[in-house]
Amino acid sequence: MKLNENTSSHGKNKMMGNRSISLSEPVAIITSSSVVGKKEGQGPLGSLFDQVGSDDMFGAKTWEEAESALQSTAASLCIEKSGLRTEEIRYIFAGDLLGQCIASSFGLADLKRPLFGVYGACSTSALSISLGALTISSGAADKVLCVTSSHFASAEKEFRFPLEYGNQRPKSATWTVTGSGAFLLGENNTEKKRALITGITPGQIVDYGIKDSMNMGACMAPAACDVIYHHLKDFTRKPSYYDKIVTGDLGYVGKEILLQLLKEKGINIEKQHTDCGIEIYDPLLQDTNSGGSGCGCAATVLSSYLLKNLEEHQWKRILFIPTGALLSKVSFNEGNTVPGIAHALVLESPS
Amino acid sequence: MKLNENTSSHGKNKMMGNRSISLSEPVAIITSSSVVGKKEGQGPLGSLFDQVGSDDMFGAKTWEEAESALQSTAASLCIEKSGLRTEEIRYIFAGDLLGQCIASSFGLADLKRPLFGVYGACSTSALSISLGALTISSGAADKVLCVTSSHFASAEKEFRFPLEYGNQRPKSATWTVTGSGAFLLGENNTEKKRALITGITPGQIVDYGIKDSMNMGACMAPAACDVIYHHLKDFTRKPSYYDKIVTGDLGYVGKEILLQLLKEKGINIEKQHTDCGIEIYDPLLQDTNSGGSGCGCAATVLSSYLLKNLEEHQWKRILFIPTGALLSKVSFNEGNTVPGIAHALVLESPS
Repeated sequence: MKLNENTSSHGKNKMMGNRSISLSEPVAIITSSSVVGKKEGQGPLGSLFDQVGSDDMFGAKTWEEAESALQSTAASLCIEKSGLRTEEIRYIFAGDLLGQCIASSFGLADLKRPLFGVYGACSTSALSISLGALTISSGAADKVLCVTSSHFASAEKEFRFPLEYGNQRPKSATWTVTGSGAFLLGENNTEKKRALITGITPGQIVDYGIKDSMNMGACMAPAACDVIYHHLKDFTRKPSYYDKIVTGDLGYVGKEILLQLLKEKGINIEKQHTDCGIEIYDPLLQDTNSGGSGCGCAATVLSSYLLKNLEEHQWKRILFIPTGALLSKVSFNEGNTVPGIAHALVLESPS
Repeated sequence: MKLNENTSSHGKNKMMGNRSISLSEPVAIITSSSVVGKKEGQGPLGSLFDQVGSDDMFGAKTWEEAESALQSTAASLCIEKSGLRTEEIRYIFAGDLLGQCIASSFGLADLKRPLFGVYGACSTSALSISLGALTISSGAADKVLCVTSSHFASAEKEFRFPLEYGNQRPKSATWTVTGSGAFLLGENNTEKKRALITGITPGQIVDYGIKDSMNMGACMAPAACDVIYHHLKDFTRKPSYYDKIVTGDLGYVGKEILLQLLKEKGINIEKQHTDCGIEIYDPLLQDTNSGGSGCGCAATVLSSYLLKNLEEHQWKRILFIPTGALLSKVSFNEGNTVPGIAHALVLESPS
């Protein structure tokens, strides 16, 4: 494989510009898995997911335990595909949307491997994969597992209204994906791999003062704009360098805002852009308004649709940018704004 | 400085045993800061903290905003001490106890630097410092800031009862520290440094089936035991290798359980052991029952008391093990257990 000219395969990673990282040796996504709920299984990507639940309880008694079951299933499946034993997973990087990340705690405890807990709202898949990749490239681990999830019912209870309340959903609202994605990362010397991670641009919190938790796309689009802008600048790349530029869960409303904000900076990504929240549901048939959202949205679309196209060399490289809205029930009720954050990963076809 | 014989200063980090990491080149804690509330200022370590608030509101209108103000102040002070500009901080690693880590989101947004959000309950200081150190040792950053906090009133509201309820506290209860600690990490080639990070043992979730959220020490002691056991085994060290073995917030109740559990494994750390939750308050004068707890407990005691002794060469090396209890209001009310997690850092005197 051709390495970036500025780096060597044995050197340290390279700091690029204001905030980006070029990995001196790419980190491999060896295997991945996606487990989703019934609604996601009925959507346009339905046939690409590894497992689709027949209901959204996954054998559990509460929504929170159902989300833990999702993570547990996705993690086990991802490890199983790799042929590794669980003991060979050096570390787990995981997080979710629930208070104190309990879906991860109760979903992954049985694996009995050291856990780095992360929280980045719906940007968590990129956050966990970034930190997993850096840990591998530092030599501190050879195999790590990155897991995230969301569940429609546990998220509605956590952030908005109990389902029983039957509140009306505005057009700008997104539908939280019931799903979990798991990714097994390893060194590039492995035979089997779905894609390579070659660059990372971690994002900062961007607050445009929006207070509408029913319009997450508008809350997160400025953060996605900021990280895409810095990424292209740090690596001196143009949007056309990528076959696809894929945001996490901006939905239809957020997508329009993102394209407009980038145009104001002289950047046009219309040709390359899509959004996991747009890909996962059919808005007319599935009544999902602006699209899908949640940690599980970007994670399951990455595992099913995006990595498939990279692995099969349909695309050479993509920029993957999960987006998160930073609010809690308390911060919202206390009248705070909903700032956004987004992290960008460069993913390439395996050689 | 003498390096570990198994590593070289230019090589990658070394995986040790089942789960530990030996840093090939130590990462420096360049500066640190501690900002605490009134009660902490009146405790045995009061004179060692950088700033003590006159009330626990820190100029804010809500407990949550007060906690954000704590983080903001600690972060700014830590950067100020280093003489660096905020733009020179490559990344921030931060987390707290509140749902969706909002104390960090709203406390650190104004720094406008990329943020890696982490969640490890009260073990978060070790989690953020571990990931910050690995990021530096991978070459992906030269300077990172690690910040954590807790606030007595926001934590009681988040996990137990509103203060106005005036519930009785059992003898096993700990008192959540109102405080924030910030740590600026950098490469070892810097002149100024308080201590060196030379090893990391990330911990796994350990669940002894305890369901009493008023006895966090008992919930966390098995996780502390597990990580200390693996650390000593992975590095083939004895407790006497360390001048101090310092857990995060087990308190008096958890300490006894930890010592007993380790004795059952043939390990005696009685001579070396202390606990940040025991050091920070006077239990008789301050009515703090089992001791202090919260992310801010281990973080502020590290910045004030532990790093002082390392910097002044009173101690040569310590094992620092913040401990976390993995529960949320929802998981507790749904009848779940309270599992524990703990991460261990090897901290050494600067050369």
